[in-house]
Amino acid sequence: MRTQVGIIGAGPAGLLLSHLLHLRGISSVVLERRSRAHVEQRVRAGVLEQGTVDTLVAAGVGERLLREGLPHSGIELRYGGAAHRIAFEKLVPDRRITVYGQQEVVKDLIAARLAAGGDLRFEVPDVAVHGLAAEPYATFGGERLDCEVIAGCDGFHGVSRPAVPEGVLTVFARDYPFAWLGVLARVPPSAEELIYARNERGFALHSMRSPELSRFYLQVPPDADAGDWPDGRVWAELKARLETVPGFTLATGEIVEKGVTPMRSFVAEPMQYGRLYLAGDAAHIVPPTGAKGLNLAVADVRVLTEALAAFFATGSARLLDGYSAACLPRVWRAQHFSWWMTSLLHTFDDDDAYARRLQLSHLDYVTSSEAAAATLAENYVGMPC
Amino acid sequence: MRTQVGIIGAGPAGLLLSHLLHLRGISSVVLERRSRAHVEQRVRAGVLEQGTVDTLVAAGVGERLLREGLPHSGIELRYGGAAHRIAFEKLVPDRRITVYGQQEVVKDLIAARLAAGGDLRFEVPDVAVHGLAAEPYATFGGERLDCEVIAGCDGFHGVSRPAVPEGVLTVFARDYPFAWLGVLARVPPSAEELIYARNERGFALHSMRSPELSRFYLQVPPDADAGDWPDGRVWAELKARLETVPGFTLATGEIVEKGVTPMRSFVAEPMQYGRLYLAGDAAHIVPPTGAKGLNLAVADVRVLTEALAAFFATGSARLLDGYSAACLPRVWRAQHFSWWMTSLLHTFDDDDAYARRLQLSHLDYVTSSEAAAATLAENYVGMPC
Repeated sequence: MRTQVGIIGAGPAGLLLSHLLHLRGISSVVLERRSRAHVEQRVRAGVLEQGTVDTLVAAGVGERLLREGLPHSGIELRYGGAAHRIAFEKLVPDRRITVYGQQEVVKDLIAARLAAGGDLRFEVPDVAVHGLAAEPYATFGGERLDCEVIAGCDGFHGVSRPAVPEGVLTVFARDYPFAWLGVLARVPPSAEELIYARNERGFALHSMRSPELSRFYLQVPPDADAGDWPDGRVWAELKARLETVPGFTLATGEIVEKGVTPMRSFVAEPMQYGRLYLAGDAAHIVPPTGAKGLNLAVADVRVLTEALAAFFATGSARLLDGYSAACLPRVWRAQHFSWWMTSLLHTFDDDDAYARRLQLSHLDYVTSSEAAAATLAENYVGMPC
Repeated sequence: MRTQVGIIGAGPAGLLLSHLLHLRGISSVVLERRSRAHVEQRVRAGVLEQGTVDTLVAAGVGERLLREGLPHSGIELRYGGAAHRIAFEKLVPDRRITVYGQQEVVKDLIAARLAAGGDLRFEVPDVAVHGLAAEPYATFGGERLDCEVIAGCDGFHGVSRPAVPEGVLTVFARDYPFAWLGVLARVPPSAEELIYARNERGFALHSMRSPELSRFYLQVPPDADAGDWPDGRVWAELKARLETVPGFTLATGEIVEKGVTPMRSFVAEPMQYGRLYLAGDAAHIVPPTGAKGLNLAVADVRVLTEALAAFFATGSARLLDGYSAACLPRVWRAQHFSWWMTSLLHTFDDDDAYARRLQLSHLDYVTSSEAAAATLAENYVGMPC
């Protein structure tokens, strides 16, 4: 079996790449070890930058996103008993965010690929990549897929990045001393916009997926087990961290999903080796505080699509050779912003009294200086490409 | 001996307070353990915020400052082989800084106080403060000075703060794992504006005191000894850290002073106890990176002057009671900014590869985003009162 681009992983990065390549007349096969139902139901990110929305709409897969997505023009920072709105419409008037679950993006992309006769293979066992230096191919369940290029879109735990020979990649990483407990609840959101709450008990985030579905996150110890968080404990803790301003009551309801997400920063450089190109979480991950993971993946795929289109049209590998260098400034901007948001809002066990006061003075600054608020806003909605 | 306000310390805070009180018809005596020559020659800060200049000019002690001070409308950040200017005239058009040595401010204030018959006492031995709760007085060399209020303007190592009973003050502090070697050289500055250089060898600062005097700082280990830094080594290290952009050559000349400054953040709260009010370094210190120490002292003194004027005019202690609360937001803004500038520009031995990349991406952001540059600029020139 032969294709132009072998794509490992049917997450947003791999599916979008396959779709964009199709629009350029470039063939691809997507290999995914999980089931279609699994990837379509996996709850992940839910905040799309303006540039991500623009990319999906321009690619013809934004119809439902535009209909069901919730456009937001601000977020709230809540701390010290007060609510402070970061007003995107004033600070970055030409850009906003859209709340739309990652799994909805995945559903839309799968539907588009299948409608166009795309070759998506789910539940393929034992995926591996080979010959990356010059003649790449993938193997899976006894089959072989020869390609001109392989795109590693299989996430942080995928097989693509570890297939790069030792010594080629430089890794930059940081683990945080806490995790997030994510909760999906069948209850209308208690506020129209996202609420990022800094609290002495730990960080909490009030978010949503639709007018009927709320999404919450709680800072928990790094070794926390969702099983230790019965629904009553979840709601009590959310109330303790979010009901800190007059007049705010958290609506409660049925919890339909719970899971613990580790908090980690990671970058592997370069994002390519031979004929292998890494995109999204396969190359870099960020703590979710800045809502950057999915958006970075889409940005990588935009760059990779242009480079592959040039390569297959002209034979020139110039853009492909520069793929990593083209992506990394945005990757590091997102790394810094995600670290910054995380540091601003979480409690750190080893923070001394001085560090806690610094954090509060920093929050006071971000919520009182227009320049400081603009740094948050412009990063949150996405820096211009 | 009796006065209305006993002022401990003849640094800029104590002298300015004495002068401003005199303008309001309030008597004071300034007690200083060092000689007049010592305080007039002590090389310290040299960057005055617009608000500090305005205060000195309005108080009638800005004549020489306006004539000899060097107004600057920007600073340079130098790293990665390139120079990046933070343009105050564009980012904060109504404010700039003025380079004028702290010891020159001290000379001007001493001259003004003596011309007005002010009671400044230098080289007074064994200064101590007593009766702070209700009937304050100072003792020195066998004499006693009864006061209605004592202003502790005697710096971080002074006697005022330690005289507050245990348990009253809460201390917030951080030490940095490096110091600054400060050098004064008889050589024209090699650039018109300050250069903050981030270098793998450590931070370096190119500054100036006059068209003939350059002032330099080098990040050095915390236990560094100026004696280990002969002139040749100083110039070689300054060249290695500053001659990193094409066309820049560091002019060298006679070094007339060398000293090591520890890098420390410190705040004691509240800045008052009974009839004692702390101002400037006696209450809080910052690492010098943000050039905030002297400016904070002047801001404290502005607030204290208004509070004392109200107290002596009307008997109301309302403003005096709120002195600390009125000062602390500015103090913490400066604490955060000074920590931020320090973190942005120094090398930290325990930084891993990830932290170094974060620092570079942060520098890239500050030098490319107008919002981020504006946060540096507005803090550097001084946030509005």
